[in-house]
Amino acid sequence: MRIYDIIAKKRDGFELTDKEIAFFVRGFTKGEIKDSQAAALLMAFYLNGLTDSETLCLTNEMAHSGDMLDLSSIGAVTADKHSTGGVGDKTTLVVAPIVAALGVKIAKMSGRGLGHTGGTVDKLESIEGFRTELSGEEFIDQVKRIGLCVVGQSTDLAPADKKLYALRDETATVGCVGLIASSIMSKKLASGAQCIVLDVKTGSGAFMKTVEDAEKLSRKMVDIGKGCKRKVAALITDMNTPLGNNIGNALEVIEAVEVLNGKGPEDLREVCVALAANIASLSLDIPLEKAEEAVSCALSDGSGFKKLCEMVESQGGNVRQLLDTGLFPAAKFCRKVVSEQSGFISFTDAEKIGSSSVLLGAGRKTKEDRIDHSAGIILHKKTGDCVEKGDIIAELFANNESLFDESEKLLLSAYSFSHNKPEKKPIIYKTVR
Amino acid sequence: MRIYDIIAKKRDGFELTDKEIAFFVRGFTKGEIKDSQAAALLMAFYLNGLTDSETLCLTNEMAHSGDMLDLSSIGAVTADKHSTGGVGDKTTLVVAPIVAALGVKIAKMSGRGLGHTGGTVDKLESIEGFRTELSGEEFIDQVKRIGLCVVGQSTDLAPADKKLYALRDETATVGCVGLIASSIMSKKLASGAQCIVLDVKTGSGAFMKTVEDAEKLSRKMVDIGKGCKRKVAALITDMNTPLGNNIGNALEVIEAVEVLNGKGPEDLREVCVALAANIASLSLDIPLEKAEEAVSCALSDGSGFKKLCEMVESQGGNVRQLLDTGLFPAAKFCRKVVSEQSGFISFTDAEKIGSSSVLLGAGRKTKEDRIDHSAGIILHKKTGDCVEKGDIIAELFANNESLFDESEKLLLSAYSFSHNKPEKKPIIYKTVR
Repeated sequence: MRIYDIIAKKRDGFELTDKEIAFFVRGFTKGEIKDSQAAALLMAFYLNGLTDSETLCLTNEMAHSGDMLDLSSIGAVTADKHSTGGVGDKTTLVVAPIVAALGVKIAKMSGRGLGHTGGTVDKLESIEGFRTELSGEEFIDQVKRIGLCVVGQSTDLAPADKKLYALRDETATVGCVGLIASSIMSKKLASGAQCIVLDVKTGSGAFMKTVEDAEKLSRKMVDIGKGCKRKVAALITDMNTPLGNNIGNALEVIEAVEVLNGKGPEDLREVCVALAANIASLSLDIPLEKAEEAVSCALSDGSGFKKLCEMVESQGGNVRQLLDTGLFPAAKFCRKVVSEQSGFISFTDAEKIGSSSVLLGAGRKTKEDRIDHSAGIILHKKTGDCVEKGDIIAELFANNESLFDESEKLLLSAYSFSHNKPEKKPIIYKTVR
Repeated sequence: MRIYDIIAKKRDGFELTDKEIAFFVRGFTKGEIKDSQAAALLMAFYLNGLTDSETLCLTNEMAHSGDMLDLSSIGAVTADKHSTGGVGDKTTLVVAPIVAALGVKIAKMSGRGLGHTGGTVDKLESIEGFRTELSGEEFIDQVKRIGLCVVGQSTDLAPADKKLYALRDETATVGCVGLIASSIMSKKLASGAQCIVLDVKTGSGAFMKTVEDAEKLSRKMVDIGKGCKRKVAALITDMNTPLGNNIGNALEVIEAVEVLNGKGPEDLREVCVALAANIASLSLDIPLEKAEEAVSCALSDGSGFKKLCEMVESQGGNVRQLLDTGLFPAAKFCRKVVSEQSGFISFTDAEKIGSSSVLLGAGRKTKEDRIDHSAGIILHKKTGDCVEKGDIIAELFANNESLFDESEKLLLSAYSFSHNKPEKKPIIYKTVR
């Protein structure tokens, strides 16, 4: 078998066999296939698309390229949740404890933030002392003991995907549905959970700009999951507007705590309930309505919040910060942003607001950047709200005043106005099973 | 400007600007753009095609990436000929002296053989003492003096094409009309001739398998030439069957000498006359019919042959070998190949016969292989001929008897038979101007 012939075959629109895909993934991971040849094949995949069979095989090969987490010793159904990335997306901090409180085992590896989107691991690290790097044994032990553990992603999880993603990133072949689906699902499969619920973001602040594209990606991922005998569902949720009001690491933990205490913004609460209910329904094999009731109950009776506190305590974090969020270190400076005009807010561009938060120090422009956990934004007005010129629409938080001007300018450019109240858009578009 | 954006633009089907193509070619040649990124762009070119404007710009950029030969000091119209490569194609050895005898200046750089096709430089080197590596000064001086010089290709001719071709070769992106056309024409433009006549081979032994594909490539190359203010024409000629009867380096020189002496096989003579007439017509600005007459005259009066002898003498070759071709060193062994069946020959697969000749030592499987100048094949029967079982259809020549079996087997497999006389196909399909 020669990689040249495999490239030529895909170039000419033919479907690759499982053996050919395995030859490519293994050879590339070992460094036996040149980057240039892999890049040519990736572009052929991008332009000619991947068939379902190719996608499934590519996913499996990448999943098996490194460690495959064995969660069988946990002795119960384990669940995982994945978000394709958004602004203000702190749902894991709410959903994981809630479903754990309902008896679902959550052994979750999360990522860090990059660009305009944040990452759960960064958010958790804003809690004093919280350890996101545990040994495999500690990880499994904690899940057995309290039913919940969230850590950073192991470096040897799907190394083929890691290497291939880096190549896609430099060759403009990231945005291909089959490649995105197999990249996400390979890591989920290697992470070992039997139940996987995906939060596929759509809109200006998401990778998938339209609901149609988000649905294609969801369908692909759900099919891969089913093909690998996992219980799987995907929710397509809105990311035109940031989710909730707080953006920035400590600020997002604080907002998650609010939701777990039965408060917090409605949009965030709605997405969290839907994700948690889907996980509970699939994992515990109960009807969705029953699962929704149980989730609402875990929010109102504080059992979800209690579970988050247990996890934080177990991973060395300062639980007092959760009990009194005023104990999170505050940023030194705050700037109130006022509206320059009156009217209804017709659009609050999530990507621009995410980037505005990065400018304050809350995120990373490159992988090497350090995060300022106390920096961020609290939005006081979002799409659909009516404002008068001079009203405070947001507050910026930073430890360096010089960062405000650029960030404020970008934030203001994220807001669009109209004379009439804009039609309310759904926050959850669709569920793909 | 970023190469990432250029890849993404071509990937999405948009036309690249001249500046973007220049950025790519220069960056890649300097090693500033990664092979992986260039490979992704090449595959995007392959699958989305190149526009005329992109092809012209790519050609010019590659032509100007190294030395641009300045033939202006020759003080007359200079002409060049290029063949896309075939089996038994010794036309340069006939055409160049003929048109030189008619007053056209030929300052020609030729290639070496690779795979099943031969190269003019290898053929010339079968003449004892013939020098194919001259200094730039010697080269120009000889053209001024006798109107004709054929040498090997300078290493610094279109280095961007050389580097890009190597990458195309490993990433399955060779067979794209726009890329082939720009590769060929970049070298022709850098070689400096004002008039360029292209021999585009089509058929089983050629890169372009159909007349339709050959016509597309011809059109592209002619348009590039015109876009660069050159006089240019392309002849689409047959390469289903080897051209002439002799295959192998010394054997081909001998057959060329026969044609220059008014003898030799009809198919070879016809292609040579057409190519020479087109060059003479374009270069000397005379009607094609007049040019054809002049060419026939130069064949019958021996002036073409005389010009070849002048060139060989000037480049240190043993002219006596041309005057008495029996002086070429003969191969030690000869095997007569007899037909295994009776009937009309319906097909003589040029590629298989070329490969059969390579097996005898007459060609190179890899660039590093050494050539045996006396090895090769003389075909006694070709497509259209009627044979009886037991008739000699070919003779194989080699300096090692152990090479015969495999070569003979391949040669026999090149012949197909039918009960009825096959329809005669044209040897020249079309002229593209």
